[in-house]
Amino acid sequence: MTNTQSNTSYSGKFLTLEGTEGGGKSTNLVFIQQWLADHNIDVVVTREPGGTAISEAVREILLDKQYSEMTPETELLLMFAARNQHLQEKILPALAAGKWVVSDRFTDASYAYQGGARGIAYNRIAEIENWVQQGCYPDMTFVFDLPIEEGMKRVAARSQVSGQAIDRFEQEKKDFFEKVRAAYLYRAEQAPQRYCVLDAARPLTEVQEKLASQLESLL
Amino acid sequence: MTNTQSNTSYSGKFLTLEGTEGGGKSTNLVFIQQWLADHNIDVVVTREPGGTAISEAVREILLDKQYSEMTPETELLLMFAARNQHLQEKILPALAAGKWVVSDRFTDASYAYQGGARGIAYNRIAEIENWVQQGCYPDMTFVFDLPIEEGMKRVAARSQVSGQAIDRFEQEKKDFFEKVRAAYLYRAEQAPQRYCVLDAARPLTEVQEKLASQLESLL
Repeated sequence: MTNTQSNTSYSGKFLTLEGTEGGGKSTNLVFIQQWLADHNIDVVVTREPGGTAISEAVREILLDKQYSEMTPETELLLMFAARNQHLQEKILPALAAGKWVVSDRFTDASYAYQGGARGIAYNRIAEIENWVQQGCYPDMTFVFDLPIEEGMKRVAARSQVSGQAIDRFEQEKKDFFEKVRAAYLYRAEQAPQRYCVLDAARPLTEVQEKLASQLESLL
Repeated sequence: MTNTQSNTSYSGKFLTLEGTEGGGKSTNLVFIQQWLADHNIDVVVTREPGGTAISEAVREILLDKQYSEMTPETELLLMFAARNQHLQEKILPALAAGKWVVSDRFTDASYAYQGGARGIAYNRIAEIENWVQQGCYPDMTFVFDLPIEEGMKRVAARSQVSGQAIDRFEQEKKDFFEKVRAAYLYRAEQAPQRYCVLDAARPLTEVQEKLASQLESLL
């Protein structure tokens, strides 16, 4: 966990998983959790939006398809309200206790979805980010990158099995997700030391070898 | 409606009602609505947190007593998420159409409750306010001022009649509401041209005479 403002340093590390749908975040989240457990690291696995009771209640509003009138700025503020609670109640206490935290999505998703795809300027997002995070950023962000068409095929196959209805974000069109993907890749290019972009079109064993080697480097 | 950044000026006016509980906001909201209707003014009456479907859903989270772990910053971000949607979907379109908007609470409540009472610095609140409102402020804010003990007596009498349960804010103690009241009076002192402080301990007819005279001055 890096806190540039107060120079507080925790022994725990904060890892986040990002990417468009179908890139294997869920599968690899389990892999990372297992890898860390095998290395005797106490790990808290969580997700955004969500991770606490209040944040999960906000998530329900965010994903609800009936709210088609939600403006991008409202969406962003709700994301950061949920994130603030998540940070204060769960992420920061875990890191302070020396645990590692692995979150399925975090602030990069706000830049990608509300920024790149919905059009809010990155510097406007940075203002809210600074207000909420006060200089706290993940130590490492894994971006599971995949062509959108391939991801959509995988999601369609998955939802045929699970029968789960799509949410307010998943109902967006290909063009929306192309923008999300481009925003993630742009962010990763700007700060290569904090991002590890994984080619999710490669075989899973290959992706996980790279994951393991990155995790090794963080120990 | 004043928009200092873009100098957009609408023919409609934006009025807000503020104050601690028991000060007669609801009764006087009806009076103002009637007064404006009598003067052939098209008026939209609304409230915060709330006023739109999304904002009312956020209100439910904000008032829910089960969420005792909510941090002041989360509370503030949820208030401004609801407010952003309220402004974009309801308040600004109404003002643009030449209507007057009367809201039971607005941003002054964030300064009073999350600032004065919960302790968030006013300049931190101002950052989010500027981000959301982009220079838009009410034309006139009526502050219904009353000693806290008197207000609490009135609320107790009212809830005995209605049988309504108290919410997450109403369950706070006297000291909390003293801070809310002090914050409102401080804000009114700083910008007397935008505030009208009404002594809610005076007889209702007297309060409403003053209200009517203020409304007259806005025509």
